[in-house]
Amino acid sequence: MRMIKPLARLHEQLRRLPGIGSKTALRLAYHVLDMPSEDVRELADALISAKEQIRLCACCFDLCDSDLCDICRDKTRDRTVVCVIEQPQDLMAMERSRGYKGLYHVLHGVLSPLDGVGPEQLKIKELLVRLQSGEIKEVIVATNSDVEGEATATYLAHLLKPIGVTVSRIAHGLPVGGDLEYADEVTLSKALENRRNM
Amino acid sequence: MRMIKPLARLHEQLRRLPGIGSKTALRLAYHVLDMPSEDVRELADALISAKEQIRLCACCFDLCDSDLCDICRDKTRDRTVVCVIEQPQDLMAMERSRGYKGLYHVLHGVLSPLDGVGPEQLKIKELLVRLQSGEIKEVIVATNSDVEGEATATYLAHLLKPIGVTVSRIAHGLPVGGDLEYADEVTLSKALENRRNM
Repeated sequence: MRMIKPLARLHEQLRRLPGIGSKTALRLAYHVLDMPSEDVRELADALISAKEQIRLCACCFDLCDSDLCDICRDKTRDRTVVCVIEQPQDLMAMERSRGYKGLYHVLHGVLSPLDGVGPEQLKIKELLVRLQSGEIKEVIVATNSDVEGEATATYLAHLLKPIGVTVSRIAHGLPVGGDLEYADEVTLSKALENRRNM
Repeated sequence: MRMIKPLARLHEQLRRLPGIGSKTALRLAYHVLDMPSEDVRELADALISAKEQIRLCACCFDLCDSDLCDICRDKTRDRTVVCVIEQPQDLMAMERSRGYKGLYHVLHGVLSPLDGVGPEQLKIKELLVRLQSGEIKEVIVATNSDVEGEATATYLAHLLKPIGVTVSRIAHGLPVGGDLEYADEVTLSKALENRRNM
């Protein structure tokens, strides 16, 4: 496609974003040209500021714009429980549920030998350091229930149990409000397997 | 949603883009945090450069990074025909077809009294100026076939015919390769109405 250089460059840059194809990128590029200059500068600045200002919390490794994140600093949270999650996005989902009052630990990935991700690539050493104080009594492993997530959970259980900390796994089963009729086979067998006495 | 400030700001800025909802904006924001710093700076710079460097061609009002666009400067194009289009995007679609060798004139909109767009808001005065040289023999009106596009076409025909220039309308009918069975009623009646002798 014949395009003037600055437009072609913007198109190329936008097209690299996930889920944005060539046509969407072009539509966005034209939209940017129609935006007031100060709005474009504001967007560009938000991109750079986010990248420059956001780092990881020194304790839980969630995204953070200071040394410690709000949750790690919050004195009202239960400091005896740590929920281990894969990504910062998962923390946000947990917080939205409002059902959890403990602390977190973000692994920044899952074990995936085929992609060259071993324990050293994850924040597992850092989790062991946190456990040394003895304040933490329970570690809830909330990695996803795919192969890598399960493998990571099993690895953590083997690693942490000998330390004397309780290791639990978040429950997998039928989603609340979900219809038995439409549940997928894997979820359903997981739900049967994990049934509890009433 | 509880979010650290730089992330919330980026999320808010991305969410303003067309077709990008809250979830997509968040996914993009997290992606930006994972991008190398130089890539983020490159993207931000592409945004600002596009906005700052792109202006309108002094002749046809297409997007351009110099005084005159490539097409207006191209001596091999037919300077006796001008195709009038709504938006720069339409010019790109026309050029992709490779079927047109004349010049263009971008209106930057269509007549739409309800939105406060009259002839003064469009590049119509500028089209009249171009016609004064007498070099242009035909104006092909290629505005869309919606109400505003048709109204703009009719307005232009009434305005330009008295000057002694041929005014034609791009054909509307069945798309090539399209099935009669699946054609919508309006296109079909347009196609019947515009039938030609064989």
